Amino acid sequence: MSATWLTDLAHVVTCDDGDRILHDASILIEEGTITALGSTADLRERADQRRATRITGRNRLAMPGLVNLHTHLPMTLLRGIAEGVDLDGFLRTVWAAEAAVMTEDTVEQAATLGAVEAIRGGTTTANDMYFHHEAAHRGAVRAGLRHVIGPVFFDGPGPDGLSWAERMQGLKEWPDRNRAIGGPSTPLTVTPHSTYAATPGQLREVVDTTREWPTTPGGPGPLLHTHVSETAAENADVRARFGGTPTEVLAIAGALDGHLRLVAGHGVHLTASDRAALRHADATVAHCPGSNLKLASGLLPWETWRADGIRLGIGTDGCSSSNDLDMWQAMRQAALLARLSSGRPDVASARDILRAATIDGARALGLGHLVGSLEVGKRADLVLLDLDRPHLTPVHDIPALLVFVAGRADVTDVFVDGQHVLAGGRVTGVEEAALLSVCRALAPAPPPRATPSHLHSGSPA
Amino acid sequence: MSATWLTDLAHVVTCDDGDRILHDASILIEEGTITALGSTADLRERADQRRATRITGRNRLAMPGLVNLHTHLPMTLLRGIAEGVDLDGFLRTVWAAEAAVMTEDTVEQAATLGAVEAIRGGTTTANDMYFHHEAAHRGAVRAGLRHVIGPVFFDGPGPDGLSWAERMQGLKEWPDRNRAIGGPSTPLTVTPHSTYAATPGQLREVVDTTREWPTTPGGPGPLLHTHVSETAAENADVRARFGGTPTEVLAIAGALDGHLRLVAGHGVHLTASDRAALRHADATVAHCPGSNLKLASGLLPWETWRADGIRLGIGTDGCSSSNDLDMWQAMRQAALLARLSSGRPDVASARDILRAATIDGARALGLGHLVGSLEVGKRADLVLLDLDRPHLTPVHDIPALLVFVAGRADVTDVFVDGQHVLAGGRVTGVEEAALLSVCRALAPAPPPRATPSHLHSGSPA
Repeated sequence: MSATWLTDLAHVVTCDDGDRILHDASILIEEGTITALGSTADLRERADQRRATRITGRNRLAMPGLVNLHTHLPMTLLRGIAEGVDLDGFLRTVWAAEAAVMTEDTVEQAATLGAVEAIRGGTTTANDMYFHHEAAHRGAVRAGLRHVIGPVFFDGPGPDGLSWAERMQGLKEWPDRNRAIGGPSTPLTVTPHSTYAATPGQLREVVDTTREWPTTPGGPGPLLHTHVSETAAENADVRARFGGTPTEVLAIAGALDGHLRLVAGHGVHLTASDRAALRHADATVAHCPGSNLKLASGLLPWETWRADGIRLGIGTDGCSSSNDLDMWQAMRQAALLARLSSGRPDVASARDILRAATIDGARALGLGHLVGSLEVGKRADLVLLDLDRPHLTPVHDIPALLVFVAGRADVTDVFVDGQHVLAGGRVTGVEEAALLSVCRALAPAPPPRATPSHLHSGSPA
Repeated sequence: MSATWLTDLAHVVTCDDGDRILHDASILIEEGTITALGSTADLRERADQRRATRITGRNRLAMPGLVNLHTHLPMTLLRGIAEGVDLDGFLRTVWAAEAAVMTEDTVEQAATLGAVEAIRGGTTTANDMYFHHEAAHRGAVRAGLRHVIGPVFFDGPGPDGLSWAERMQGLKEWPDRNRAIGGPSTPLTVTPHSTYAATPGQLREVVDTTREWPTTPGGPGPLLHTHVSETAAENADVRARFGGTPTEVLAIAGALDGHLRLVAGHGVHLTASDRAALRHADATVAHCPGSNLKLASGLLPWETWRADGIRLGIGTDGCSSSNDLDMWQAMRQAALLARLSSGRPDVASARDILRAATIDGARALGLGHLVGSLEVGKRADLVLLDLDRPHLTPVHDIPALLVFVAGRADVTDVFVDGQHVLAGGRVTGVEEAALLSVCRALAPAPPPRATPSHLHSGSPA
């Protein structure tokens, strides 16, 4: 029986229902499950009995792993190829690049790169959307990430070249495939791209298929993950073509009937009645502040959506629009932008933002009973941060330190499902240097390496 | 004669007037001055002649050190003590904490902590404002930072307990003190806090004193660094008490007469005529996006200020409001927020933002002839980044990679005035572990270390 004992932790941020923070604490993990939280002295006997591997966390902070609620991991390979454009210009550039380079093998490598970036930054779960979804899943889990994905749907062939009939056939086989690939605790997921890239009739066909899908007992029900009201132009386009807002189209397609968990990516431009409908469906909006700013999509009014009772999670979007997978950035941006949109400095507290990026994200995916907080009985998806850094000194307000200061490079260790996937700053699941070389070679444009080498020289002053 | 040769650099981002980026390049530094830029082969003979210490920069990027144009370094010690408040609530909390703990010795230690944080993040110059300014300067230069500061002025005793007459006496002695302490290349600076914390008459007294100050030949003229129109409430307050905007009060006090370089901290709520006056005075606005968002002060409309011809630099503000000294955050926030305030994704290009954080900041301080870009004849204030990281892979657009992805932890080496102040991730000027311990002990509130240690345990699942 495998056991790990994290001792001498300066602080343990639990994100439990009481938002408790323990000090000078210790965590025991057995067979991937957190079996005890408490003082080092109190846990010693049990840890010794279990012959636990001891990891001392002096001046380290433990917290739940971050849940990236909306991303496109394989787009790591397209980082920086579409600068200075809005969503429309972005999609045109990116879709062309994807058609050119994104084979199934490339998607797998690019997803591994994204997963390694995510894990290094303390993300333990990613809610992903990409074509060649099985390849993306293989790539992400290879690095040790908890990875949620399903088949994607476009009106038209899409970069994977599949016909609609082929997509629907794949969808019918997906519950069995998902169970085989992801195991029983991976949410069964479907990811139609959006209400502008598929017709209401197509969406209904997808949704109707999921009505027959099994619901894991005690576990997650089927998940529908899609883009919703990212831009005002999207709203206008969908209204002009289909007579309603993206949320209304989803409702017409049956996606808000209650048998699906809905994760609405972006949700910047929701109307009041959209918000009421999403709340009624217990949907979650995945707020992606970096992408929304970069593409000038707009500013999600966090406090208003919150007051309307909508669950909010946080995502990075794909890193060709944001331009990385850094959930610390996304948390900080979400907290700061909520102050801007409300005009108030006392909204979106650091605790609220931490919850959005951990337990609320987990609940959005139907994984709240398994991960998202550090509690006895949950699977060990957790992160250690090294506080021995000048920018993390002194410590006055721990949630504020995490949301407004800490960053990806402060993460030294990451456990996913009890596996030590980042150990003392070293990725354990893949050969990282080789992966970077492979991905540089696969990137759509050659790196800028021409050698103009203008020579200039002079005398020392 | 000391010489350093940086070779095999993947990229050199110069921030020169042509924004040139060299590839597979090499930099020679002699006696702290950049004497050659070019290919490794071309520089070899000269480097060998000078017996230069060779540092190989394989897969590293070199760029000018960042210029933090508005900060309060010693406030590192107050990080996280004033959460959820606006500027007014912030000042009340912070000023009380400062009066309680900020002795001259504490200011010195706290400034060293701030300087170490800044240097680790690739900042080579900080435009600082704090009381006990000589202590702050000693603390900052101890870590190797290029540090610009001057005496501060408040109406009332302030946390340092000085009377107005004592402040004015100190001001008269400041040119000699500055030359003795900072050397000939440190801008002679005065930092009245703001137009709300000193009267127009007091400001005039300060400004009139600087009229007699020497101008360094070929070097910087006297610099006036103050807070200007940070919040709408400040504008209203100053208008009610003194009959004009903060900029108008500065003009009445003679600060825009042309004999001073003006750095206006924040500048969020400038009127059109304020902007015209600041442009005419060749003033620089130090944009502090993180602080402005956190305190809900407002959103500086970057593109409008730019169109009005105002020079813009970037700052972090003190890290009790922002909550760190991370110029990468500030750059990214500035770029993203410009897209929000303009509604356009094609403004504030990554190149513009890089210039604002380097050469434009240097020019604002009268240091543009010395630092701010990598050019032959300039002092070596430069930074190396390690590109061998998953989040920096692949490289398609170098400026975008720097502004929208790179972060403090990617900085491995920092040179200030040719001194290797961060070498392979190690601070060379101070004993960092001891400094962190000292600063933890000096912090105003004890760190949260009570031991509630709630014990919970259960069986493995």
